[in-house]
Amino acid sequence: MNVLWILAHPEPRSLNGFLAAEGQRALRGDGHEVEVSDLYAMGWNPVVDAHGYAHDPAERFRVAAAAKRAFESGALGTDIRAEQEKIDRADTIVVQFPMWWFGMPAILKGWFDRVWLQGYAYGLRGPDGEWVGYGDGFLAGKRALAVVTTGGPAWLYGGRGIHGAVDELLFPLQHGTLFYAGAEVLPPVVISGADRFTPREGEQAAVVLRERLLAIPVTEPIPYRRQNGGDYGDDLVLRPEVAPGATGLGVHLA
Amino acid sequence: MNVLWILAHPEPRSLNGFLAAEGQRALRGDGHEVEVSDLYAMGWNPVVDAHGYAHDPAERFRVAAAAKRAFESGALGTDIRAEQEKIDRADTIVVQFPMWWFGMPAILKGWFDRVWLQGYAYGLRGPDGEWVGYGDGFLAGKRALAVVTTGGPAWLYGGRGIHGAVDELLFPLQHGTLFYAGAEVLPPVVISGADRFTPREGEQAAVVLRERLLAIPVTEPIPYRRQNGGDYGDDLVLRPEVAPGATGLGVHLA
Repeated sequence: MNVLWILAHPEPRSLNGFLAAEGQRALRGDGHEVEVSDLYAMGWNPVVDAHGYAHDPAERFRVAAAAKRAFESGALGTDIRAEQEKIDRADTIVVQFPMWWFGMPAILKGWFDRVWLQGYAYGLRGPDGEWVGYGDGFLAGKRALAVVTTGGPAWLYGGRGIHGAVDELLFPLQHGTLFYAGAEVLPPVVISGADRFTPREGEQAAVVLRERLLAIPVTEPIPYRRQNGGDYGDDLVLRPEVAPGATGLGVHLA
Repeated sequence: MNVLWILAHPEPRSLNGFLAAEGQRALRGDGHEVEVSDLYAMGWNPVVDAHGYAHDPAERFRVAAAAKRAFESGALGTDIRAEQEKIDRADTIVVQFPMWWFGMPAILKGWFDRVWLQGYAYGLRGPDGEWVGYGDGFLAGKRALAVVTTGGPAWLYGGRGIHGAVDELLFPLQHGTLFYAGAEVLPPVVISGADRFTPREGEQAAVVLRERLLAIPVTEPIPYRRQNGGDYGDDLVLRPEVAPGATGLGVHLA
């Protein structure tokens, strides 16, 4: 594998720092290439602004259009372009972060906001002029894996736990971002109870992580329904005969 | 009302800029106080770091603990403290943003990441020593409203639309953040199809927004189940007899 590992944690001496080092070591030890975007270490700027898209601030800043123009004319900020080149080189993307307020830390959210721009990551058409997305796109043929720590214990993130089911909390990232872009998204590695981890529990988590990483090529992806697979109508709403009457995020699983 | 209006959009000449101005004008015209945190205009830093919590970088940075210590000792960054003071003055919080990758722009996510810290926004105990959250907390007695624009049309965000039901995409913000903190969270104002809005459609959206804003005091909140209301057991998992057998984010609605 050629892995791009995106990490969002401010402290290398944390559990996340330990897991990142151990996971990358396991992959390299197994003969894989690993490129790392350690967003805190890079001082990544997560804020979409006119400057990154070489937009003249005298003109109204239409975010998507300005980004597309900069991408197509080669005027993108070099930090954004560098991340796109890493994505293009990878066949596997690992996104590792601590869950903060039930989502990604801002520095990571802003990696997607700035890098996954119109013309590169969305707004694409296929060979027959059809719109592309959800199961096909610029990540087609690549695999993606989220590695997430939560402060609270696992049962709070179960199907009936008060925080909400973790798979559904991760839906905007896993379905709306990674699967939308065409990646095969693997079930996440969720390491719960991280607030009170002992070194021994950290090592146990690293064992699980190593196994999951080395199994990436043979792991069954999350069975999200494909946009152009027949389950959705032309309006991109689930056809009435598919999971009849059901609503909610779970209906997008085949 | 004393309203704190948090806005996350880089362009004042955008639909979001227009709606913010019109909404704030409507509130003030009706006799309400409005304080604004225009995160882009403020140059808000969304990245949690040791500096904002006055943490010595020679020591391991444990985010939650360092934040709590800085809060309790008065060592918080002045930008963070200023936002907490605005929250404390408000009885109503409006959170306005364009949905990017099915969540908040990074600059807004990082407002919550940095400001809603342990000891201020969570990790609180009630009068009998019980943990407080989901229906009770530092926002108890306050109301909150999300105002969200989406580029795509409304049906893509319906219960069976391919992007996922908008209420469930907003669950991390509305349930996990605002309701967790004790606020009464009102049904969101979702303005869809914003990518192709005409000025006339913008004006129609402003009419809807004004009506919703002026109705805040009399609008029925989203009926999320309260943590200490009896539906959850001591483990904070939904009791078996409540919505028996059901899972997914929808089970947390009474």
